[in-house]
Amino acid sequence: MSRQDTRLVALALGIALSGAAFAADWQALPDTAPAPADNPTTPAKVELGQMLYHDARLSQNGTLSCASCHSVMGGGVDNRPTSIGVGNQHGGRNAPTVWNAAFHATQFWDGRAPSLEEQAKGPIANPIEMGMPDVQAAVDRVRAIPGYKPYFDKAFGTGDTVTVDNLAKAIAAYERTLITPNSPYDRFVKGDKAALSAQQQRGMEQFAAIGCTACHSGAAFNGPQPAPGKSVFQKFPLFADGNPYIAKYKLTDDQGRYDVTKNDADRHMWRVPTLRNIAWTAPYFHNGEVKTLSEAVRVMAKSQLNRELDDATVGDIVAFLDALSGPFPKQEMPQLPPAPTAMLE
Amino acid sequence: MSRQDTRLVALALGIALSGAAFAADWQALPDTAPAPADNPTTPAKVELGQMLYHDARLSQNGTLSCASCHSVMGGGVDNRPTSIGVGNQHGGRNAPTVWNAAFHATQFWDGRAPSLEEQAKGPIANPIEMGMPDVQAAVDRVRAIPGYKPYFDKAFGTGDTVTVDNLAKAIAAYERTLITPNSPYDRFVKGDKAALSAQQQRGMEQFAAIGCTACHSGAAFNGPQPAPGKSVFQKFPLFADGNPYIAKYKLTDDQGRYDVTKNDADRHMWRVPTLRNIAWTAPYFHNGEVKTLSEAVRVMAKSQLNRELDDATVGDIVAFLDALSGPFPKQEMPQLPPAPTAMLE
Repeated sequence: MSRQDTRLVALALGIALSGAAFAADWQALPDTAPAPADNPTTPAKVELGQMLYHDARLSQNGTLSCASCHSVMGGGVDNRPTSIGVGNQHGGRNAPTVWNAAFHATQFWDGRAPSLEEQAKGPIANPIEMGMPDVQAAVDRVRAIPGYKPYFDKAFGTGDTVTVDNLAKAIAAYERTLITPNSPYDRFVKGDKAALSAQQQRGMEQFAAIGCTACHSGAAFNGPQPAPGKSVFQKFPLFADGNPYIAKYKLTDDQGRYDVTKNDADRHMWRVPTLRNIAWTAPYFHNGEVKTLSEAVRVMAKSQLNRELDDATVGDIVAFLDALSGPFPKQEMPQLPPAPTAMLE
Repeated sequence: MSRQDTRLVALALGIALSGAAFAADWQALPDTAPAPADNPTTPAKVELGQMLYHDARLSQNGTLSCASCHSVMGGGVDNRPTSIGVGNQHGGRNAPTVWNAAFHATQFWDGRAPSLEEQAKGPIANPIEMGMPDVQAAVDRVRAIPGYKPYFDKAFGTGDTVTVDNLAKAIAAYERTLITPNSPYDRFVKGDKAALSAQQQRGMEQFAAIGCTACHSGAAFNGPQPAPGKSVFQKFPLFADGNPYIAKYKLTDDQGRYDVTKNDADRHMWRVPTLRNIAWTAPYFHNGEVKTLSEAVRVMAKSQLNRELDDATVGDIVAFLDALSGPFPKQEMPQLPPAPTAMLE
């Protein structure tokens, strides 16, 4: 075991042993998501962002919008191990849910984007996702649809408002409204003790007691937020000895954050995913290899805490995780402006 | 020119010459669409149908829902010449709009389905569209998602409600709500004389005077409805001599209804498409070869009425056709129930 591993194990064990302390730190999700100073969330941006998010004309052959892989009302995901992009190409990683992405300090599984704004640009220009040559090419499409211009002006003032940055800002502003602060768990934490069943409350205690909260902490259950000397990334899997899941689910085939930094210390380091709405987002893990939530719980207990859970405990924890779901705030389907001429081949 | 052609030309000319009579027959769209006796439209069916219509899990690899090619708030189409199905396979014909499909007496370009219920089953089991082995396989997926069962029960009573026929009925019921009875044209016909501009009113007169109404008649502008001795199909293109568009846009490569009946008289016979929301549905014609509405008007005038229109007339008619658009009734985005286990590869 490397020094790095030893440190992480010590951290995990330390936290596990102080599980009771974590149980006191249950946080409800805020009613609004934080926004950067240069992109305050406004209704006009959200309205435009919702349209753009659902517009497949932003993809090379017009078959994919952001919603294709992050279906808003389908849990923010596509329920596939890895997504399928233009030309039937498969991506390498499981699509993370868009719900509560606003509470992540960094975006993508490997944290390669620092903000939702930067994230929004990624898939558009990724050749195996939406497949545009660059984001400007998508903006050129939007510019050729006159019905979009009034929405950009309303959101960003007058002048040359149809720009790459404004497109990304609008999509990010919309995504900041995709939060689920009224789950049974939130209602429970806020005082409605009937919001969770007895089994769910047992699962909640066990979730903390066995140490899941070491990484899945905070209101979004997505781990420590950035602070001096504190990384938002965690190693997965942490325990390799006697861990049958690594080979079974190919957990180490992907190098994780190492692919971004080429720093050896970042091998198999991953952003901690939110557990909110996890019941909606099968299959699980960065490669989508695990089909059920109960198996995902077993894999995590073994791989991160070196624990083998009995079926009852797994059932209790899954019941608790179910309480982290929705409801998804109702929203109207966006009406997309027509193009005056066919722009897709 | 064959006897069949001569008869059709005589019909077209006779109608063109009596254009004034057609001008008196402008009909507004009814506020509700007709429904078959065995599938009355109910809120519960519409709610379920909207969910199923938007659920990509009904396709083989989970990438396509009905909405992928018939985007409801994108004009009911995909704005592509021909649609792209599972595995990046191209269909042979342009996706017709789902808006006001309820007013068609027959479904698909070649009329091979007699009802929306039958139509709904087609693309699910079409190997180059949604690609399921059969519709039952899609129903099996739905059955494996427990959250759907209460919606089927609410719509269809208790017992074994999750069936192929009920799935089709629910989707059809939803589609019967996708109608646009409040376009500027409808408001004009109902007495609001300010609803159309002077140019649109000129275009409306010319549309009738030159004979477009011969086929594009009735409230949905989709031609004569079925009656004894009356066909809902029309030949396209009708005039071949000196028609440059046939080669340019490959108008006769597809045999149309002949492919269904193998009857020579059905060669190049097509269901008359609705013109409602036509400004949203570029590109045009069964093969999507024509990119703009103004060019589509020129092609139709030459191919069906042997007329070459000047630019002013084309502009007026396009302005009138713009008045046949929307608004699309607002609707909430449907929340899709989660699957308890990953069901997609």
